[in-house]
Amino acid sequence: MALRKIINDPVYGFITIDDPLIFKIIAHPYYQRLRRIHQMAFASLVYPGAVHTRLHHSLGAYHLMHNALNELRNKGVDISLEEERGAKIAILLHDIGHGPYSHALERKLLKGVHHEQISVMMMELLNQQFDGKLQMAIDILSSKHPKQFLHQLVSGQLDVDRMDYLSRDSFFTGVAEGVIGYDRILKMLAVHNGELVIEEKAIYSVEKFLVARRLMYWQVYLHKTVVAAEKMLVKIIKRAQELLENGIELHAASEALDFFLKDHQYTNDFRNHLEKFCCLDDTDVMCTLKNWCNHQDVVLSLLCKGLVNRRLLKVEFRTEPFSKEETEEKCSKVARQLNISDYEAGYLVFKGEAVNTTYNPNDERIKVLFKNGTVTDISKIQNALIHQHFASPVKKYYLCRFE
Amino acid sequence: MALRKIINDPVYGFITIDDPLIFKIIAHPYYQRLRRIHQMAFASLVYPGAVHTRLHHSLGAYHLMHNALNELRNKGVDISLEEERGAKIAILLHDIGHGPYSHALERKLLKGVHHEQISVMMMELLNQQFDGKLQMAIDILSSKHPKQFLHQLVSGQLDVDRMDYLSRDSFFTGVAEGVIGYDRILKMLAVHNGELVIEEKAIYSVEKFLVARRLMYWQVYLHKTVVAAEKMLVKIIKRAQELLENGIELHAASEALDFFLKDHQYTNDFRNHLEKFCCLDDTDVMCTLKNWCNHQDVVLSLLCKGLVNRRLLKVEFRTEPFSKEETEEKCSKVARQLNISDYEAGYLVFKGEAVNTTYNPNDERIKVLFKNGTVTDISKIQNALIHQHFASPVKKYYLCRFE
Amino acid sequence: MALRKIINDPVYGFITIDDPLIFKIIAHPYYQRLRRIHQMAFASLVYPGAVHTRLHHSLGAYHLMHNALNELRNKGVDISLEEERGAKIAILLHDIGHGPYSHALERKLLKGVHHEQISVMMMELLNQQFDGKLQMAIDILSSKHPKQFLHQLVSGQLDVDRMDYLSRDSFFTGVAEGVIGYDRILKMLAVHNGELVIEEKAIYSVEKFLVARRLMYWQVYLHKTVVAAEKMLVKIIKRAQELLENGIELHAASEALDFFLKDHQYTNDFRNHLEKFCCLDDTDVMCTLKNWCNHQDVVLSLLCKGLVNRRLLKVEFRTEPFSKEETEEKCSKVARQLNISDYEAGYLVFKGEAVNTTYNPNDERIKVLFKNGTVTDISKIQNALIHQHFASPVKKYYLCRFE
Amino acid sequence: MALRKIINDPVYGFITIDDPLIFKIIAHPYYQRLRRIHQMAFASLVYPGAVHTRLHHSLGAYHLMHNALNELRNKGVDISLEEERGAKIAILLHDIGHGPYSHALERKLLKGVHHEQISVMMMELLNQQFDGKLQMAIDILSSKHPKQFLHQLVSGQLDVDRMDYLSRDSFFTGVAEGVIGYDRILKMLAVHNGELVIEEKAIYSVEKFLVARRLMYWQVYLHKTVVAAEKMLVKIIKRAQELLENGIELHAASEALDFFLKDHQYTNDFRNHLEKFCCLDDTDVMCTLKNWCNHQDVVLSLLCKGLVNRRLLKVEFRTEPFSKEETEEKCSKVARQLNISDYEAGYLVFKGEAVNTTYNPNDERIKVLFKNGTVTDISKIQNALIHQHFASPVKKYYLCRFE
Repeated sequence: MALRKIINDPVYGFITIDDPLIFKIIAHPYYQRLRRIHQMAFASLVYPGAVHTRLHHSLGAYHLMHNALNELRNKGVDISLEEERGAKIAILLHDIGHGPYSHALERKLLKGVHHEQISVMMMELLNQQFDGKLQMAIDILSSKHPKQFLHQLVSGQLDVDRMDYLSRDSFFTGVAEGVIGYDRILKMLAVHNGELVIEEKAIYSVEKFLVARRLMYWQVYLHKTVVAAEKMLVKIIKRAQELLENGIELHAASEALDFFLKDHQYTNDFRNHLEKFCCLDDTDVMCTLKNWCNHQDVVLSLLCKGLVNRRLLKVEFRTEPFSKEETEEKCSKVARQLNISDYEAGYLVFKGEAVNTTYNPNDERIKVLFKNGTVTDISKIQNALIHQHFASPVKKYYLCRFE
Repeated sequence: MALRKIINDPVYGFITIDDPLIFKIIAHPYYQRLRRIHQMAFASLVYPGAVHTRLHHSLGAYHLMHNALNELRNKGVDISLEEERGAKIAILLHDIGHGPYSHALERKLLKGVHHEQISVMMMELLNQQFDGKLQMAIDILSSKHPKQFLHQLVSGQLDVDRMDYLSRDSFFTGVAEGVIGYDRILKMLAVHNGELVIEEKAIYSVEKFLVARRLMYWQVYLHKTVVAAEKMLVKIIKRAQELLENGIELHAASEALDFFLKDHQYTNDFRNHLEKFCCLDDTDVMCTLKNWCNHQDVVLSLLCKGLVNRRLLKVEFRTEPFSKEETEEKCSKVARQLNISDYEAGYLVFKGEAVNTTYNPNDERIKVLFKNGTVTDISKIQNALIHQHFASPVKKYYLCRFE
Repeated sequence: MALRKIINDPVYGFITIDDPLIFKIIAHPYYQRLRRIHQMAFASLVYPGAVHTRLHHSLGAYHLMHNALNELRNKGVDISLEEERGAKIAILLHDIGHGPYSHALERKLLKGVHHEQISVMMMELLNQQFDGKLQMAIDILSSKHPKQFLHQLVSGQLDVDRMDYLSRDSFFTGVAEGVIGYDRILKMLAVHNGELVIEEKAIYSVEKFLVARRLMYWQVYLHKTVVAAEKMLVKIIKRAQELLENGIELHAASEALDFFLKDHQYTNDFRNHLEKFCCLDDTDVMCTLKNWCNHQDVVLSLLCKGLVNRRLLKVEFRTEPFSKEETEEKCSKVARQLNISDYEAGYLVFKGEAVNTTYNPNDERIKVLFKNGTVTDISKIQNALIHQHFASPVKKYYLCRFE
Repeated sequence: MALRKIINDPVYGFITIDDPLIFKIIAHPYYQRLRRIHQMAFASLVYPGAVHTRLHHSLGAYHLMHNALNELRNKGVDISLEEERGAKIAILLHDIGHGPYSHALERKLLKGVHHEQISVMMMELLNQQFDGKLQMAIDILSSKHPKQFLHQLVSGQLDVDRMDYLSRDSFFTGVAEGVIGYDRILKMLAVHNGELVIEEKAIYSVEKFLVARRLMYWQVYLHKTVVAAEKMLVKIIKRAQELLENGIELHAASEALDFFLKDHQYTNDFRNHLEKFCCLDDTDVMCTLKNWCNHQDVVLSLLCKGLVNRRLLKVEFRTEPFSKEETEEKCSKVARQLNISDYEAGYLVFKGEAVNTTYNPNDERIKVLFKNGTVTDISKIQNALIHQHFASPVKKYYLCRFE
């Protein structure tokens, strides 16, 4: 009787793990670090339940992968034990390269080294530690494995990543409308010419899935308060780096965060700094922000206090762009009010864009398999809800400002 | 301390009733009859959990009405206690005129007297018994009360009837994708110029609501097996009436059903037969069908046995109409097989259409109230999911046949 | 790729069936009849959602059996494919012998032929029709198969029957406190010396299971309104038989029910009447009751109208028995009020007892397997909630009376 | 139309706030700090979903208080608007004095200043800031308000604190068996002679509540892995303070934590240090632990790395105490293995006790109100599950050790 570990999950009931290699990966400090990175960054400022972690999400996606592979095997799709393990490890580690408050900090703190690149670097590092046993997972993640559908399960239009994060995020936020029929979609997956397709009977479930995603974007992920918080963090890091360049003394709460703040050369070969990167998580950032609340720089301390105490910048969304004049006028007003320069006020009054696309058929390609064996993109099916029409992204313009 | 009754409801937790008049209406045999009429007729042949009753649905809609009125009052809408009681009674009784397997039997058994007409007749009868205390409810239901929004809560595009049946039907069928955010929609209702509108923040929830309804139609209400069963019942009643006209002896299991089967004059003034109508429910029909399983008429007994034992006619759905030739050919084949006439075989092989519209802006008019005070139909909002495009009904053609 | 049928279940999500023999059993009219027998008889008079059927319950128990066998196999327990099929069929058919409103009518209508005996008779009949393929299922149900744990999964202290009915009944009634951790209990099942045991880690879950059962008994199954309705049905059948013996004309709505009402010899060999028995379900009884509402006999019509229109006898529960005097006095009062004899009034005023035992260690024997390999009855574990103390049944006395 | 804020809560759906004073309290930095304190400390190491915060819990308890007061008012209990506001603020702030990883750190870091004392101090501070408007809340919390039942709703045997944390903790852990019928219990609350009692009909729900609490204690709160993590944190702080006393250089990641680590005089008057205390939360501790992973002291760095990377001490639970010999022997073995002193090894090998009482009638006093107006303690009711027997606490002994 092999060792089996059962993890309680409020979303799926239980998650079962029974592969010794996967035990070891989960127990590795690199993976455990994901406990300290929130899946939804600042969304909990609006939805207080949304404090779940990237570790929990990746365990959930692993569980869905297990079920998806089972369903496909039951339908006669050939999947070897090694491929099964590979696909499971790939999904487990697909987010391992996320830094603290990832989407927010990627550009500023890591100078644009993308979390997906880091995930691959970290998997390669782990692959060395585990004697090459992660090669299949790396191949699947990088789309080098010949069975395309395995890669599409990890990262495609109906991948288990999205299915888990939509399910989990709607569960923890309490946004009931975000609930998707992941169970039904999984049961309707099939493989056709080596590609992942979905059976005709699931058309309405897929429509529902796309509509739920659309709703989650506008109602949760791009909620104006969430956007304000993320932008404030970006501005904080930018200001901190500016102060450092100007020779002002400033320390992060941890050595690792200090390094990434101050050292500008590391991106030459990020691989050399992976060990340090693996020390970073949300707590470094939050602890640092709290320390900076009392910094002498008005802009830095204002932004930090605002984010720590949830006194956020006001945000307005519009369907048309904000004019340069309006922005500048508001900026000047804040400058006078706080007795800072217009340039500095630009940290407290600024504009931007939020974009989301409901379904882009060129890009996404959800293929529906009909009973007669033909395959059609979901946007081209007669009477479908999802049309060409939705291919163009919806843009909303926002202005954040101190009040 | 007033009497208060608390009813457990798996969908909403608890339903509370605290008005003595409403107690008496609920306790009335006319209302209790709804215990014996399934909300979803034959849907339980596909979704075994879907055996909930019209009584349960109307109690649920009453609960949502209570919450909706509360929300509106909290927003400053003027609603008197009498209007509250009227709206609650109106929704409680809005379905009281449903006969057994209602949609299926309305045309055949009741010669087209529509359940909505019967509901009003029965409310008038009850109004006499309750000394005119139901007048406000009747006025609201009949749209005669000046506050239009009260009528729209009972019967409109975002009425509590739909909200309950979508929630309840998806709950009992287990079709998770049918779940709607009724709670959020209720909280976003408002009144503008006397009409029910929905606040801008609920746009995505309303989209989700319309998509859920669309899904429930095609996946549940118009599921081919459900359609087959309903059509079989219609054919059974038609055949029975034909046999009676031809002088064949035939009895329903109850006196009331016997009356409606055999007497053809009653529709002249249905009001005279309300008492008899109130004896009818699903059990009369099912018990009768079981008795007729052994009737000498091959067609009748075949259809009854099929429906009782869930050996249903096969159904095929197509996007194009079935040709006359194809239908006739299949019909003849069955005639030969069972040694019956082609005419008789027409009871076992027949075609029809199923139609559903996602959202018809001319007809439905879900009005969205923007923060700036303007009101726009949901189909005309920029970037909305629901477009003019969905106004035209989707038709599917089916052929039922004995095999 | 084998045929696979997926059934939506609001309790477990999906139930999957993939064995052609099991398809055929489910499609058989004997099994389909269970669609028309409510799992909880008259409980829906108090809990309007509790209208689920015995068909739904047995499908659910089948699903849990599937999961339980999987878990045991994963733990190294040897279970052949034939045994798996046998256990699944046994649980699917364990309730097939239930008559209409079963517990209520067993004694009166079927003269005490117990539904468990009938289940076995019907399985034997089906075994003939299916060429002996149900023999293993019959052996498991009758405890003749050497692997005792299979029988215990069908009918024991932690069997899947109880686990499903507690889960399902609490789900459909909306009594949240009846929810049990079936999933966790299933995962903790094990086999020790051929017997079903439960791992130490599940002690608290089993305690919770027993407490949930206790709660469901007193709050739902033995709810005074439910008891009143069941007793009224028993009295109705008794009165009908009495009237028939006295030569009064009286007909049931269906031929099958008429037979069991009138023929007193059939119990000699029930096996000869199985075909008739299989025509009986709740609709025969309810349709008959509705017909009898207008019968000339005051007692019969009063009871029928009461049950049909939910104007039930009043019930009082006490911890001490009601005295003969009190009962007789109330009986006489009703006799005078209705102008009937004291004997007849005995149909409308009568007393009885409701009994339930929380856990009887002599009888139930839930065995806990400790990590060190020892096995102990749950009632003998140090600090356990469930003690010897709970072995004695709790009795409550009730008096039903017309008012 | 007053301002109204609606917060999504996955446990209760929506939490509504409509009192401007309560808005201000929630927006206060002292309250917002609770966002950064986990409700269940290290429980998420076993139950990954259990990352909800004290802010979320206190909002949930506030919601239940709102409902409870409503129910009592509906039953005719006199509660003024000022008392309502007081009770709501009292429950909102009842946990505001919790420090980081509260139960674990109270003794070591705050030298035994109990979080309940700190809560009162902080409420008094807020009372000054809010012009005395929190006085009623302070009186209710401190049991000085004459209406005892209000205090009992905040802190009693059936208080909304417990009801929320049991509901919320079982929800986020996914331990379905911890679910309680809070909704039903709330509806059955009543006031008798000024004290909170529960109606007879809720006896089984209260039994279920106590059994759920018992299960949550042994299965979750006192789970051996959770206990190990908490004890490791206590040892880390103790070791750090010892190193500091010995003059070893050591810094916390934040100034506030540094202060409480190093200054030993503050407990003289904790009131002077409230401002500093309000800067502390879980992120200070976790960020500090991460920094200390590389400290030169073997014991400190081992413990920190273990807790950060979830390589916890092994724990064994027994019903009998561990002997001094066994503990010392294991200790010495670790000393030799790591080349440290036996004294130092005592940080890595140590024993302790976990205690929980199911229901202590002397202490807890859940009073049941019978229909006849009498009141009885739940442990003295005939046939109750909860008996005198459960009054004595259950003790389990554990040994933690490095491996």
